[in-house]
Amino acid sequence: MSTFKGKTAWVSSADRYMGPAIATELERLGVLVTRDTDRLYTDAHLQSKLSEIPDIVIANLAEPPKKGPVEHIEDSDWETLFDHLVHPLMRIVRHVSSAMKERGHGKIIAVTSAAPLRGIPFASAYCAARGAQNAFIKGVGLELAKFGVQVNGIGQNYIENDTYYPPDLMQDERFIQVLNTQVPTKKVGSSLETAKLAAYLADPDVRHVVGQIIPLAGGWTT
Amino acid sequence: MSTFKGKTAWVSSADRYMGPAIATELERLGVLVTRDTDRLYTDAHLQSKLSEIPDIVIANLAEPPKKGPVEHIEDSDWETLFDHLVHPLMRIVRHVSSAMKERGHGKIIAVTSAAPLRGIPFASAYCAARGAQNAFIKGVGLELAKFGVQVNGIGQNYIENDTYYPPDLMQDERFIQVLNTQVPTKKVGSSLETAKLAAYLADPDVRHVVGQIIPLAGGWTT
Amino acid sequence: MSTFKGKTAWVSSADRYMGPAIATELERLGVLVTRDTDRLYTDAHLQSKLSEIPDIVIANLAEPPKKGPVEHIEDSDWETLFDHLVHPLMRIVRHVSSAMKERGHGKIIAVTSAAPLRGIPFASAYCAARGAQNAFIKGVGLELAKFGVQVNGIGQNYIENDTYYPPDLMQDERFIQVLNTQVPTKKVGSSLETAKLAAYLADPDVRHVVGQIIPLAGGWTT
Amino acid sequence: MSTFKGKTAWVSSADRYMGPAIATELERLGVLVTRDTDRLYTDAHLQSKLSEIPDIVIANLAEPPKKGPVEHIEDSDWETLFDHLVHPLMRIVRHVSSAMKERGHGKIIAVTSAAPLRGIPFASAYCAARGAQNAFIKGVGLELAKFGVQVNGIGQNYIENDTYYPPDLMQDERFIQVLNTQVPTKKVGSSLETAKLAAYLADPDVRHVVGQIIPLAGGWTT
Repeated sequence: MSTFKGKTAWVSSADRYMGPAIATELERLGVLVTRDTDRLYTDAHLQSKLSEIPDIVIANLAEPPKKGPVEHIEDSDWETLFDHLVHPLMRIVRHVSSAMKERGHGKIIAVTSAAPLRGIPFASAYCAARGAQNAFIKGVGLELAKFGVQVNGIGQNYIENDTYYPPDLMQDERFIQVLNTQVPTKKVGSSLETAKLAAYLADPDVRHVVGQIIPLAGGWTT
Repeated sequence: MSTFKGKTAWVSSADRYMGPAIATELERLGVLVTRDTDRLYTDAHLQSKLSEIPDIVIANLAEPPKKGPVEHIEDSDWETLFDHLVHPLMRIVRHVSSAMKERGHGKIIAVTSAAPLRGIPFASAYCAARGAQNAFIKGVGLELAKFGVQVNGIGQNYIENDTYYPPDLMQDERFIQVLNTQVPTKKVGSSLETAKLAAYLADPDVRHVVGQIIPLAGGWTT
Repeated sequence: MSTFKGKTAWVSSADRYMGPAIATELERLGVLVTRDTDRLYTDAHLQSKLSEIPDIVIANLAEPPKKGPVEHIEDSDWETLFDHLVHPLMRIVRHVSSAMKERGHGKIIAVTSAAPLRGIPFASAYCAARGAQNAFIKGVGLELAKFGVQVNGIGQNYIENDTYYPPDLMQDERFIQVLNTQVPTKKVGSSLETAKLAAYLADPDVRHVVGQIIPLAGGWTT
Repeated sequence: MSTFKGKTAWVSSADRYMGPAIATELERLGVLVTRDTDRLYTDAHLQSKLSEIPDIVIANLAEPPKKGPVEHIEDSDWETLFDHLVHPLMRIVRHVSSAMKERGHGKIIAVTSAAPLRGIPFASAYCAARGAQNAFIKGVGLELAKFGVQVNGIGQNYIENDTYYPPDLMQDERFIQVLNTQVPTKKVGSSLETAKLAAYLADPDVRHVVGQIIPLAGGWTT
């Protein structure tokens, strides 16, 4: 697809969650991809490692949910989720948006979660952090739309990735039971599906999708 | 993209709404496309013209909204909307689903509207008909998911097409004012954006999106 | 609650679905309630039986879903659903809206379903009809808002009523299993909950809720 | 309404946002209300001031949005929003849920915002914080449902309150223009509407609404 010719992308947590699949797919399409493997994305890190603002920013952030009843949420687990999912997303977007606005084009694609769309019991801290991400993307997406910059999120669930679905979980009887009763497709989706959706959203031809969280969840949420 | 090699598609109202753009894009990807230009899609028509069930069915149905206050809805306009948008969609899906289920794969992509996601004043009849479509797609999408068949809808608004946005409307001062105040991108989107989204949903690699109405509306709805 | 003093209401299908519970609750609050037990609400019926437009209109329409796979939908079942759920709702709203607009106040509350919010497999015809209702209510709700008329829907599921949950179903083992796996509250809700929500929406003090489908579904949808 | 007889409630930020209106309405219904006027709700504060867990907890938290483009978000403003809106909500729910679960009943009603449902440009930090709240309420609501505890949120916008709509703003020409173009009712709603919705959700008879964010926004979102 020649539309990506000469385009540049930066992928956060490129060794984790949907980072590898998206980076590979963008490269396949001819994008020059920078893979960043930091976790927290402080301003100092961004200024040093993301000094040249690329055409496409993949804000891929992950932190496994700390499962458990709400009365047992630990402050440190709560903070870890916000430190790894929420605050870095804001800093990344804050860092790149001026240049994209001035340039009149740019793509920010956040890989978030479908969890806030429906809610997951015993994962309320995770829901909260992902909910902050999704709502932030909506606000920013509407804000940057008129400047030619498209900001969207991929709200996935039950998509294969090492961070949330390590190989042993995939064999777990209870997990297979969850798939059978909770996921209409009865399967975990392929990481390529997220990667291709990210490529759609990153496509220079696609400018009418903004501030959208697109669910990719096997029918778990509609 | 070799994933479409040897695939067949059937596009309804192929001369109208998003039919031309989607048919062209699928052909570009190597799909063998049949363009059907009927309007009502009776069982007789489907049995005769869609006797061989293709891999991909594009249920593209359109009928301009009859704008006006709810107290002035004409029975005939109301019926026309249901006759052109709602009942054909059911008949098309009913006609193709058995074969797709037996085969263990298949794609149905309905081009519907974002109107029911938010509601449009003075277009309540149109909202009703599109709302029936969207909810039908959700139900069928969840139902067919476990059979390997993916059914989804594209909920678009403010995407260029001859049926809803004829050239003279696009120049209309009042319409430009609507774009400026109601649509965050301040623009009408390109038909290629819908076509590429349809191609994403039709991609054999994409099996985890089911029963979903994906908004494509310039931020008019999120 | 004195806010309802002197108010009048008309309840459709008053012997069915949520009709009895809502009529009783409104009467308890001092509303003068007319109970209509027709099914189809033709224009002739409405002109004759609803000649004086009341303050509050409860558009309570019900028809049990015809369950089954999409390929087995019968035209007659499909039409029955639209004839009993969709077209009467339009005619009722069309009939009362002018008077309410002129008067500068009025309440229309449709008892619909949560089915279209998430989709129900093997009930796609029912989803379609309820989806038409919900989207119609959104459009009309936004349209009439500025005239001081509030139109909303109650999107319920798993609420006790004779039409959908007859006593024998409530004892059925499979149904109890569905409650346990699909409904977070693990229970069927009381009809009083819908009635009290209808009373909230009918309250003259409540004018900021418009075009809204409020889910009431035990957490089945959020 | 005798259903509230003998019930106790605790209202946070009782001097701010929707606190006064809700506290007054619950008292009118016969509830014994404790008004807490703290801001941060640390564990120490909760252990000391909320040692007896009431039947009803109103988690009313407010902090005016820091408006501005995303590239100008200040770390301190961002943190203030999370410190006042997000973390206290978690601590309040964490503090009261065990007792409510053991008792087999309880009500938690969070007054949040409709902002995350649609997104607000130039208020992305606020969207993020309210989005965390809404998603947290969904997760907890689904989690506590089977224990007889109902947790819900009120997603309001354009409802009168001193915190967001001080008297001078209400007279502002630009604000009135926003109401006219963005809010279908063309008005700011009364605080009593939120208070009555809170009373509905707090009603012991209402047990089928869980994990829900109910929009109350003049049609700004549907």
